[in-house]
Amino acid sequence: MLLKRSHTCGELNAEYEGKEVILNGWVHIIRDLGGIKFILLRDRYGKTQVYFDPKENKELYDKALKLGNEYTVAIKGVVRKRPEEAINPNMKTGEIEISATELEILSESDTPPIYVNKDEEVSENLRLKYRYLDLRKEKMQKNLLIRHKFMQASRKYLSDNGYLEIETPFLTKSTPEGARDFVVPSRIKKGNFYALPQSPQIFKQLLMVSGMDRYFQIARCFRDEDFRADRQPEFTQIDIEQSFSDKEDIFKMGEELISYAIENSTGEKIETPFKKMSYQQVMDLYGSDKPDTRYGMQLIDITGYFKQTEAKFLKSIIDDGGVIKGFVIEGKAKEYSRKKFDELTDLAKQFGASGLIWIANKENEVKSTIKKLASNEIDTIIKDGIISQNGVMLIVAGEKNKTNKILGHLRENLIKSEFEKKNGYDILWVTDFPMFSWNEEENRLESEHHPFTMPNLEDLEKYSDSDPLKIKSESYDLVINGYEMASGSVRIHRKDIQQKVFEIIGLDENEIKDKFGFLLEAFRFGPPPHAGIAFGMDRLIAVLSGEDSIKEVIAFPKTATGSDPMSEAPSKLGNNQLKELGIKLDV
Amino acid sequence: MLLKRSHTCGELNAEYEGKEVILNGWVHIIRDLGGIKFILLRDRYGKTQVYFDPKENKELYDKALKLGNEYTVAIKGVVRKRPEEAINPNMKTGEIEISATELEILSESDTPPIYVNKDEEVSENLRLKYRYLDLRKEKMQKNLLIRHKFMQASRKYLSDNGYLEIETPFLTKSTPEGARDFVVPSRIKKGNFYALPQSPQIFKQLLMVSGMDRYFQIARCFRDEDFRADRQPEFTQIDIEQSFSDKEDIFKMGEELISYAIENSTGEKIETPFKKMSYQQVMDLYGSDKPDTRYGMQLIDITGYFKQTEAKFLKSIIDDGGVIKGFVIEGKAKEYSRKKFDELTDLAKQFGASGLIWIANKENEVKSTIKKLASNEIDTIIKDGIISQNGVMLIVAGEKNKTNKILGHLRENLIKSEFEKKNGYDILWVTDFPMFSWNEEENRLESEHHPFTMPNLEDLEKYSDSDPLKIKSESYDLVINGYEMASGSVRIHRKDIQQKVFEIIGLDENEIKDKFGFLLEAFRFGPPPHAGIAFGMDRLIAVLSGEDSIKEVIAFPKTATGSDPMSEAPSKLGNNQLKELGIKLDV
Repeated sequence: MLLKRSHTCGELNAEYEGKEVILNGWVHIIRDLGGIKFILLRDRYGKTQVYFDPKENKELYDKALKLGNEYTVAIKGVVRKRPEEAINPNMKTGEIEISATELEILSESDTPPIYVNKDEEVSENLRLKYRYLDLRKEKMQKNLLIRHKFMQASRKYLSDNGYLEIETPFLTKSTPEGARDFVVPSRIKKGNFYALPQSPQIFKQLLMVSGMDRYFQIARCFRDEDFRADRQPEFTQIDIEQSFSDKEDIFKMGEELISYAIENSTGEKIETPFKKMSYQQVMDLYGSDKPDTRYGMQLIDITGYFKQTEAKFLKSIIDDGGVIKGFVIEGKAKEYSRKKFDELTDLAKQFGASGLIWIANKENEVKSTIKKLASNEIDTIIKDGIISQNGVMLIVAGEKNKTNKILGHLRENLIKSEFEKKNGYDILWVTDFPMFSWNEEENRLESEHHPFTMPNLEDLEKYSDSDPLKIKSESYDLVINGYEMASGSVRIHRKDIQQKVFEIIGLDENEIKDKFGFLLEAFRFGPPPHAGIAFGMDRLIAVLSGEDSIKEVIAFPKTATGSDPMSEAPSKLGNNQLKELGIKLDV
Repeated sequence: MLLKRSHTCGELNAEYEGKEVILNGWVHIIRDLGGIKFILLRDRYGKTQVYFDPKENKELYDKALKLGNEYTVAIKGVVRKRPEEAINPNMKTGEIEISATELEILSESDTPPIYVNKDEEVSENLRLKYRYLDLRKEKMQKNLLIRHKFMQASRKYLSDNGYLEIETPFLTKSTPEGARDFVVPSRIKKGNFYALPQSPQIFKQLLMVSGMDRYFQIARCFRDEDFRADRQPEFTQIDIEQSFSDKEDIFKMGEELISYAIENSTGEKIETPFKKMSYQQVMDLYGSDKPDTRYGMQLIDITGYFKQTEAKFLKSIIDDGGVIKGFVIEGKAKEYSRKKFDELTDLAKQFGASGLIWIANKENEVKSTIKKLASNEIDTIIKDGIISQNGVMLIVAGEKNKTNKILGHLRENLIKSEFEKKNGYDILWVTDFPMFSWNEEENRLESEHHPFTMPNLEDLEKYSDSDPLKIKSESYDLVINGYEMASGSVRIHRKDIQQKVFEIIGLDENEIKDKFGFLLEAFRFGPPPHAGIAFGMDRLIAVLSGEDSIKEVIAFPKTATGSDPMSEAPSKLGNNQLKELGIKLDV
């Protein structure tokens, strides 16, 4: 019979002195001090010190000698106040220790390939292969606890505000979200396949058509993309849709939800309302649609200084309608060497610039790539205080949108490489994204978000025939600390507008029917106006946990090749199984 | 601009008289009364009557003439008390109506293929093809609301009791749960496949090894079985696992969880603790491991009456160690005709009986198939009051376990066909299932539950070599109204026991490694004792909603062939897509 715990390893203190208790947990650390065996017993809730004194009970002491790290044990004992000098004020149970009276070894442990009690660098492959040991570490337990709390709080907020949690199918039809679908062969309808959902987008819109009014789901989504950097083939989003609503309703809900969920998972207070900037504003100021604004370095348009320049290459860019823009990095003029500037120039070129202009406002001397060509212009710029003392301005000249983006990339890169990570949250709604973008490869317009996004109706009227790229949409992203944390839009619910949008992206009748048929069919029967949003939960939790990688907040993530070193998924199937599914390998 | 609702269609009453309000919703019913146009406006929260009086506003009245059923509208108006005779006490808003002052048609509706305002039989195919209309019906909205509330309450109970919600992967390795896996080809590791989880069983056990202590997840699970009756390829379970626990802990948690979640979803109070019977008890008394005990008809062993019988076929069964058992249906002796008994006999034979004996205790005369052969025995049985006046006893003779099962099937069949459905809940833990069962086809022992179930240790010692079928396990099911609603067990955490169990089911080293390798590997590192359970949420919600089919409580279910008439999933893939996945069709 199991000695079942009376308390966890995280709750005993001096108030329990003299009480008999039972603890269950893992042997975290073993120490010998003056002939007495001390073990630190660990569970999810904390750690408690237990000692075995051979003078009190020799038999029990001998049994304790058999213990090794990560053994699972049940211990009965009596709570004792620690001697004054042994009190550990940094530990919840640091006032007390347990004088053991019984010990049951519940299971033994081989030497673990990952030391749970040490903070040492372990290779990702080993961490994932022995994930159950990796997850014993305090940091991982803390991260999953934040995730748990965030989920419960999100659901509570949404449920309390009339949103219904409705489960949508995983075995669905391929939907047009842009990425590749994971597919599942049907055994019953051989030759046919289900797709795993990239998001519940169409189903949640159908739930609005069905009058469900307010929907949410913490939904797993799947994208078979090439795993870059920190992508996972499956990820979790908090998916929300609501009827009879406009974007102001979504902003209000989103702000309440996020501040409530953060406060209830990490304890941090978040100020609302959040900042709001349009897509055009953030692109002009930061060259990015997901800027971290805490690092400043706003883009400055200095085209005006060069209207009369003798530097021909700049003049011709201006004459072609281009801009000269840059941003200032404070206090780096002395530090940056020629080599550093060369590296930055290479970087700018990688991002598509034809070159990089820099001005370093050193104390005694201004240095610049264009010092000879445009010394007057530089003087005026310096005189106008655009570049602070000892500041460096990085400058790109060219077509406006492209120039913004290049500078945005440079800025982002510098934030990561040159600055210490800031604490706290920079939260920002970015609104009014363009409705369409130009697909260079296919030489056609495509939807920037998805074709169900409501366009700005004035723009649609004005530009649909002449310049669709000028049409903005009723869309919005939530950006936190430079990451896109949520994306959403008011949806189209009027057939005429939907038709117009399909025409603009060049779909013919058949394609429309094939790709969007069942949603359009649903729109025949009184669809309500509706809007929605989806929060990327993995990234959100990573930021809340202070982690760079979402792998640190997912219990069982995959490697960059989509495999699981622990279970060895994916794996081979037998020929019979393939046969039964109506497929064969073609490798 | 949308006229956004100030109130829902379910909240206005006489207290709001004179107030200007805006409602958004669907046109549920249109009526003409004395030249005035009445519409009943519907949303998820209720219905409100609105009227358009041409004498008050002719232009608005004319606009209202354009309305059709299921149009979506925004209406501004003033709350009026209804005339006394028009008050509808059965309706939340039955005291009032809205005198419309503005009308905005948000979207029109074609004639819907399913009438939302009528309770008429609609084919399943039509219901699923136009699921968004079907879901507008009050019953479906109520069912999904119960489901939503049940989920929130379950999570709240579990979260409040220290269980962490942890998401386990969907792209996993094939696990040995007995049913067929749905698989997902890997594009990056061509020729390899992920499996969709049949349950998070192994992952939740690994989470216990990782020290997560108490885990839950409302998890989608997948089984590629031939769709019988009311099966769905994907289903939802409330999945729970906890460390340092025995089955009493699970019973207590399960009872608290279920009673809390039912009370918070339907308002019904559930008494705890639940009844508890062992597998052997329910098999002996009801011939089923999931009996609905509300209908009585317990099995009665009448072997004793036939110890000296002259009926040779009965005597020989008894001599072979068999039993004679039956159950009594009250008040049917007059009603049941010869034809009915013939049908019951056929049914018994379908269930594997060699024949059916019946005794009908009619008022003036006892009739029986064995009246001539065993009239004395029948007299004694009647005299002992075993068959009530006008009762019918159905009797089967043969090997005990088989006889129990045949009678159980008969009993279940009669409950469905002969009795009115009872209200309320019959809740029962069934415990101590056999650890192993005999697989006739493969001529070997297999696990009754799964091989990680903890066997009864005394049984294991006593019978593992001589008669493993006698070994009981530390397993339990929760049965409600004759349905298996949950299944679970204490798990094995000791390597020696796990090894023994594998030996008994005849696995060799390689099979063990291939099938269960990574869990066994994890067990090398101090696994805690743990136990768990999984509740079948779809069936639970169906019972709570008074529905026979789980399709009535799933937003977007599949047909019996696993297809979705709405989205037309599953569907064909292009050859490029197949090529990219490294597979081709083999149909």
